[in-house]
Amino acid sequence: MKISLIGSGNVATNLAIGFHKTGHKIVQVYSQNQINAGELAQKTGSLPISSIHQLNPAVDMILVCVTDKAIQTVIEKIGFEPQLIAHTSGSIPMNTLSRFNNYGVFYPLQTFSKNRIISLTEVPICIEANSTDNKIKLEKLAKTITRSIKYLDSEERKQCHLSAVFANNFVNHFYVIAEQILKEKNISFELLKPLILETAVKVQSINPIEAQTGPAARYDTGTIETHLNELKSDKFEKLYRFVTESILETSFKQNTPDTHLNK
Amino acid sequence: MKISLIGSGNVATNLAIGFHKTGHKIVQVYSQNQINAGELAQKTGSLPISSIHQLNPAVDMILVCVTDKAIQTVIEKIGFEPQLIAHTSGSIPMNTLSRFNNYGVFYPLQTFSKNRIISLTEVPICIEANSTDNKIKLEKLAKTITRSIKYLDSEERKQCHLSAVFANNFVNHFYVIAEQILKEKNISFELLKPLILETAVKVQSINPIEAQTGPAARYDTGTIETHLNELKSDKFEKLYRFVTESILETSFKQNTPDTHLNK
Repeated sequence: MKISLIGSGNVATNLAIGFHKTGHKIVQVYSQNQINAGELAQKTGSLPISSIHQLNPAVDMILVCVTDKAIQTVIEKIGFEPQLIAHTSGSIPMNTLSRFNNYGVFYPLQTFSKNRIISLTEVPICIEANSTDNKIKLEKLAKTITRSIKYLDSEERKQCHLSAVFANNFVNHFYVIAEQILKEKNISFELLKPLILETAVKVQSINPIEAQTGPAARYDTGTIETHLNELKSDKFEKLYRFVTESILETSFKQNTPDTHLNK
Repeated sequence: MKISLIGSGNVATNLAIGFHKTGHKIVQVYSQNQINAGELAQKTGSLPISSIHQLNPAVDMILVCVTDKAIQTVIEKIGFEPQLIAHTSGSIPMNTLSRFNNYGVFYPLQTFSKNRIISLTEVPICIEANSTDNKIKLEKLAKTITRSIKYLDSEERKQCHLSAVFANNFVNHFYVIAEQILKEKNISFELLKPLILETAVKVQSINPIEAQTGPAARYDTGTIETHLNELKSDKFEKLYRFVTESILETSFKQNTPDTHLNK
């Protein structure tokens, strides 16, 4: 397929390189940021462009990989009817693209960073399209890069994105906090890496509720109180209290009438 | 080494099986729970006992793998002087064992479940001992099961345990919440597994602050507001707001004067 990209960020970079590697032709890369566009264009043998008006209509698909708030502005500037246009956002409804004839969504459910190019073969690609033909086109494209394709409507995709915020963004933030807690005693984050990995590997085969361990899951209020006293930051203490109460509620639904922690 | 275990839970099971596999002799397993003691004894070719008074003093080490609040009660019942006694707790100070002559701590920094026996070769074993001799003994034992040994005093170990609560217990709870959010639209948790795995793999080589992605890390307040409106549970909404504000503070320390989210 001949594909042009709007955007040169984390998602654009990983997808464009994935497409390039599997034999697709990346024709043009547009980005507000000239340096980023240039870099991605170089990595994918394509042409960086500095204005959306320079987009070549003679491609099979235009893939919009910009931030959610930029999508509307960007697509308004497209002055021709693309063969097919899709965005890659989890939370923006498909019909944002309804001024075109052929459109859809190509949402990779994964965390991407520009400086970490990952294999796409296990990444779920969530597809939505405005016609069966366009759905087949997007499916065919997805199949060239992944084994995992899922059809989700805009509401379902939004729900997936919301759950992904917990499973990735919030999880990663807790890694950040764990690192900060270790730093107080000059202990290296290295020490936590096997634990972090096993935590994620465990729920690949065990249900997360069964995988839960730790003081809250054991109703070990002594250790919980000790931890609350140990935490020097108000923010961390509040977070600790809050998540612990949530674990207690989940783990002891039937057994304990009151899971509110005293200070 | 000849080792007897007090406890037959998640930690006891994984350690005992690890020791057994590497050629150590598990002599006895004591547990309040007769069935658990019997099961673990069977898996490790050892003898289940139903009273601490039945403990055979002729072993090289007694390993106390019970919950934090049970440690004191259990050790008070030991009526002889063991060659060496160690507990496996992250938060209990070593000197809880100071009524004995030879004692220490053998704390594996990992999440264990009885129904998931994992390889111990990468699990950091955090050691503390009341003498150089005992430290050498514990180190020698640790070396037979892992490549990763760390010396931590009781304060440092407590801090590690606290950071591990964020990196494992709280992280796993967010997997639970993510699963619940998906369930509202009958979407399988399977879809999140590659994301969960990559989130953990990513911070094995990238600093967690650099690995942060998502609406909060992009200061995408539009998506954040949409998510807050979408969340049906008050608890989830409060958690979302709280963790998001914490990410905003971490990511935009210098740039934004006010990171408090409006409803």
